[in-house]
Amino acid sequence: QRNYASLENNAADVLKKNISNEVKFTTDAYSYLKRNPNFKILSQDDISYFKSILPSNGLIIENDNNYDDLMPYNIDWLRIHRGKSKLVAKPKTTEQVSNIVKYCNEKKLAIVPQGGNTGLVGGGTPIFDEIIISTKNLNQIRDFDPISGTLTCDSGCILEILDNYLAEREHMMPLDIGSKGSCHIGGNVATNAGGVRYLRYGSLHGSILGLEVVLPDGTILNNLSTLRKDNTGYDIKQLFIGSEGTLGIITGVSILTPRRHKAVNVAVLGLKSFKNVQDAFIASKEILTEILSAFEFWDVLSLKLVKTHLAQGTNFPLGDEYPFYALIETGGSNKDHDEEKLSDFLETVMAKGIVENGVIAQDNTQMKNLWSIREGIPDACMKVGSAYFYDISIPISVMYEIVEDVTSRLKDAGLFGNNVVDVIGFGHIGDGNLHLSITSKSYSLEIIRLIESCIREWTDQYKGSLSAEHGLGLIKAKILEHSKPKAMVDIMRKIKHNIDPNGIMNPYKFFPYQ
Amino acid sequence: QRNYASLENNAADVLKKNISNEVKFTTDAYSYLKRNPNFKILSQDDISYFKSILPSNGLIIENDNNYDDLMPYNIDWLRIHRGKSKLVAKPKTTEQVSNIVKYCNEKKLAIVPQGGNTGLVGGGTPIFDEIIISTKNLNQIRDFDPISGTLTCDSGCILEILDNYLAEREHMMPLDIGSKGSCHIGGNVATNAGGVRYLRYGSLHGSILGLEVVLPDGTILNNLSTLRKDNTGYDIKQLFIGSEGTLGIITGVSILTPRRHKAVNVAVLGLKSFKNVQDAFIASKEILTEILSAFEFWDVLSLKLVKTHLAQGTNFPLGDEYPFYALIETGGSNKDHDEEKLSDFLETVMAKGIVENGVIAQDNTQMKNLWSIREGIPDACMKVGSAYFYDISIPISVMYEIVEDVTSRLKDAGLFGNNVVDVIGFGHIGDGNLHLSITSKSYSLEIIRLIESCIREWTDQYKGSLSAEHGLGLIKAKILEHSKPKAMVDIMRKIKHNIDPNGIMNPYKFFPYQ
Repeated sequence: QRNYASLENNAADVLKKNISNEVKFTTDAYSYLKRNPNFKILSQDDISYFKSILPSNGLIIENDNNYDDLMPYNIDWLRIHRGKSKLVAKPKTTEQVSNIVKYCNEKKLAIVPQGGNTGLVGGGTPIFDEIIISTKNLNQIRDFDPISGTLTCDSGCILEILDNYLAEREHMMPLDIGSKGSCHIGGNVATNAGGVRYLRYGSLHGSILGLEVVLPDGTILNNLSTLRKDNTGYDIKQLFIGSEGTLGIITGVSILTPRRHKAVNVAVLGLKSFKNVQDAFIASKEILTEILSAFEFWDVLSLKLVKTHLAQGTNFPLGDEYPFYALIETGGSNKDHDEEKLSDFLETVMAKGIVENGVIAQDNTQMKNLWSIREGIPDACMKVGSAYFYDISIPISVMYEIVEDVTSRLKDAGLFGNNVVDVIGFGHIGDGNLHLSITSKSYSLEIIRLIESCIREWTDQYKGSLSAEHGLGLIKAKILEHSKPKAMVDIMRKIKHNIDPNGIMNPYKFFPYQ
Repeated sequence: QRNYASLENNAADVLKKNISNEVKFTTDAYSYLKRNPNFKILSQDDISYFKSILPSNGLIIENDNNYDDLMPYNIDWLRIHRGKSKLVAKPKTTEQVSNIVKYCNEKKLAIVPQGGNTGLVGGGTPIFDEIIISTKNLNQIRDFDPISGTLTCDSGCILEILDNYLAEREHMMPLDIGSKGSCHIGGNVATNAGGVRYLRYGSLHGSILGLEVVLPDGTILNNLSTLRKDNTGYDIKQLFIGSEGTLGIITGVSILTPRRHKAVNVAVLGLKSFKNVQDAFIASKEILTEILSAFEFWDVLSLKLVKTHLAQGTNFPLGDEYPFYALIETGGSNKDHDEEKLSDFLETVMAKGIVENGVIAQDNTQMKNLWSIREGIPDACMKVGSAYFYDISIPISVMYEIVEDVTSRLKDAGLFGNNVVDVIGFGHIGDGNLHLSITSKSYSLEIIRLIESCIREWTDQYKGSLSAEHGLGLIKAKILEHSKPKAMVDIMRKIKHNIDPNGIMNPYKFFPYQ
């Protein structure tokens, strides 16, 4: 249903390469990448070893007849990265993972851990001939405690399956992302996934209670705690949250899950200015407070794109005379109370002149329709010709100034009207996460350079982030040293070196040069 | 007001040493501690250097006339630890901290970072002649953004002052602990403080957005981000949360603060069994869901102790015929809604026979009275003679079995009635955090040994924690290796060694042998 994580990232690269139907090898697209000569090349002996650990349906080994079997593991979901792995291992148990990794470490065989392969930055696919260890068969729910709401499961469990399992037990996963039908919880943890419940339930750094991780030397680090409080030692599990497979393979996860909402409401607002969007967000925090689940915004150009290019554009209940729109979702335990709060909120913001117009969805269908406008924006952009998507964290107070600045710089450079069609802003205002998109008639490196230098100035000045939620992977590895103080990157490198001295875990990613 | 963190920890040691009014030197109480000979002894040259960095009111240097000036820094709040430091530095700026630490690292002068000196495990006071760097003068609020609710401040800001500052801006700190009138936010972060808002707002690992830290080599690590989302690199700031001053000195903090509640309600319940306490907690999560702020419990022996020994015991609105009691606090944005939910909850649990009796506080005074029963339990224990306090994380489902098991083992050993008076259980059920207390006529090592071996069996079996919220410090340093898998402790040691190769930051604490 909600699919709006799908394209909000690096579409410039996406488009460039999607021109050909055949997906290029990543090594051709990124010519600076050189295979680390310290890594062993897979031999028949290695294959024999893996066969001794895993049953035949737990291994895919390249031969003349199974090119297609390996493809879904070598190519990413965006179809812009393509590796050359010759072996996929699909262990069913943590012990199997441990045996495989231990062997790889001894032999210096490089590894790419892979979950649902839904990442957007090329972090989950191989570059050269790394061995792929898929968590696909690590898919058992181990335990759920209805008293504390703690769920413990294998890392290869699919997010939506976990959420459905919890729904039957009146709980919910504290995160929800577009790819939930195929992404693995282990991958969510490894990439510190954000998503639409972030405003309400915060980051995985708060809700993950324990992890089981196979370290690069094969050691099983069992910290699958379900305790809410434990102040004994540095909180080492935090390092693995967002480590993108560079420190080990997550095999088990314990997570704190909230009660499922009995009542859910969605409203859409029309507003005159971005200042009003901010004021509406403040008012929503004041009046809706504990039931506020999402606060999304988009500008009128975003709306017009959806109206022009997508079917759901015809269903939008407000006109396109408002410069800004906001979508609010509430979730609570008492339907009447929630509806009263939402009415109270709408009356207040309209009486104060903060909001011009507002509509509350009357049923599930209308809710989904309203969400589909917000979710359709990236798809609508793609219809124009070329589109460039950026994913930025920045203080809310200056968030929209970036969109205006990029617009005026493109105008000053004479690119507007000529090639550039639209500059639009939308995103998770509640999380300070702007999605900035530019559409143009044809793909242009000049446009990209101008946009990127402008964005970098803004994120530098306001200590923003160039990757709010998708991680570094391969595409953004080079921004790490620019994004974080040298002292922090130094600590990161030391940690990487200590935990993975042979550098076998997900090489070429995360750090630009290891 | 709420002071119930004060004595729930290691009271055996407390009592043993409080027998003498004079506080013993820690080196006498812990004879295994040996001064690290690699550390330099403070010289006149060192003092001259510190005088060049700090004004005279920023330094306290031992001389014949100022014994009392140094005492509040050398002795901890529990008056059970006493160091021999000869110099306290009170920098006003991060740069001053950096200069001092850099110098200390070059000279190998050991350092104890100290916040409000309210810790309960001896982590914030020196053992030998370590230099004390107090955050007392780092007390400026740097910024508050009312839109996002992010607060940025110096690490020496007092928790209650920050909460009052936020109250004027309709926000609140996401944590609240007994020592809030004197503890520093930097110390809260360094010890990953828990407290009474934990059930609702979770751990500091979720709410801390950025930190400024002076590393052991004097480098200022500036990661004072106010972004909710930033997926660029390992989340290094997490390492400092709960590191107890062993990896650097936190000088600045950014924290996400929630809206202040417009409505607060407190109810107290009488229940027949611990199963009923669990069922009442489940019902509270179901019916009160988003407004549930605290769920505390205690047994009837706890109540009887308070009734016998403390004034507030006479104000308790329920009789002592119930084996268990629970205190529920709600916080929300709409008083009528919250009261309706609370009434609904009480009707449901009483109709189902889960709760025998319940009372809702009618005003602030009654709320405080109800809290004061819960908060008075440790004080009441102290009146018996000797008391032994334990602070355990354990799955809620088996939480009270520990109390029953300790009771029966003390009976089997013939210690009950003879010396042991009571075994009581109380604590933060919502967080799975049991406070187990034993009272006896006189102090007995035999009793301690029996209790501790029993507790350790339970925490081992259920992967519990022997330090739910207070940290390791000096007292619990020895349990680290027992509490966490060797692979995790190994990673901790490597991190410590990488970041603090000279081991100058808060030595003798955290790790048993460095």
